[in-house]
Amino acid sequence: MYSPAVENLITQLARLPGIGRRTAQRLAFYILRSPPDQALALADAIREVKEKIGVCEECFNLAEGPLCSICADARRDRTVICVVEDPSDVVAVERTHEYHGVYHVLGGALSPIDGVDPEHLRIAELLRRVEANAAVEVVLATNPTMTGEATAVYIADRLRGRCRVTRLASGLPVGGDLEYADEVTLGRAFSGRREM
Amino acid sequence: MYSPAVENLITQLARLPGIGRRTAQRLAFYILRSPPDQALALADAIREVKEKIGVCEECFNLAEGPLCSICADARRDRTVICVVEDPSDVVAVERTHEYHGVYHVLGGALSPIDGVDPEHLRIAELLRRVEANAAVEVVLATNPTMTGEATAVYIADRLRGRCRVTRLASGLPVGGDLEYADEVTLGRAFSGRREM
Repeated sequence: MYSPAVENLITQLARLPGIGRRTAQRLAFYILRSPPDQALALADAIREVKEKIGVCEECFNLAEGPLCSICADARRDRTVICVVEDPSDVVAVERTHEYHGVYHVLGGALSPIDGVDPEHLRIAELLRRVEANAAVEVVLATNPTMTGEATAVYIADRLRGRCRVTRLASGLPVGGDLEYADEVTLGRAFSGRREM
Repeated sequence: MYSPAVENLITQLARLPGIGRRTAQRLAFYILRSPPDQALALADAIREVKEKIGVCEECFNLAEGPLCSICADARRDRTVICVVEDPSDVVAVERTHEYHGVYHVLGGALSPIDGVDPEHLRIAELLRRVEANAAVEVVLATNPTMTGEATAVYIADRLRGRCRVTRLASGLPVGGDLEYADEVTLGRAFSGRREM
């Protein structure tokens, strides 16, 4: 129905997550209609990230060069390591401006059902870094999901006795409503309640 | 927060219609994680359509070359011209396998409020083609919207006396439910009722 080049673009767009064939068609027609500059800017941006962006040798965050901007920053405290699942989680924590240590990106969470075992995550590398940096604290900031919790428990276990191991607090989201909180979150908020 | 290359990719993705910054971030991380082959295939597909795909000299449909695949097909009946707003509408009509004439892509619909006047659409070109092809019928297949209807009325007026001018039927969608039909559609279905 479409010419081969258009069909190929639709197919490539439809491989993106959350983009079905209908949306891919709409995007393809938008790209066809848009000024060449704009469409080529997108093509170049994709090519550029694949050429330039690699993985930080230290923490496995995204990096333009051998080290990511955080590991390359001498002002960051190397004795505190925040463990996250993905590079996007680093950005989320950085946005809070609450944290001044470094990160360690695991590359996912333990999920034996999906075939993700400890050796598939950068856990051995974390243990080595904890030694090398003489870390005083590891903050486990994996997601508050089943797999994230399991990963946190596993790592906490491996680090026992080596340094302080903490976990991000679970509880009610700020601005949330008690009435609409699910019972697990509300239960966590209770068990984690603090003196005022 | 992100490195410049990643930030640029997010910005470029967020320019696509229906893609907000959040979705653009998700897509960017997906592209960063995906195998280089796959990401570069997308970049190349975008570049390829912008290089290869132009506009058909005859009907203004998308074309790889001077003529689109429909105008280049000698078996199509050139004396019947179906007028549509956009190239995606050509694909929609082709999918029905009901139509064996040629198309004319207007490039939009009349909308004086948005500054789209008759001279911004390929209406003069349509009138010339009707003469040149000695057309016996023009099927107005603009969208059944306010602007599409106005465009159909305008073109019908310009073609009066030159050839047969028809409009796609409006009515209940096949598989639809009378109960849920809006009153305008149901009204059209009534006024367009046929003998059985």
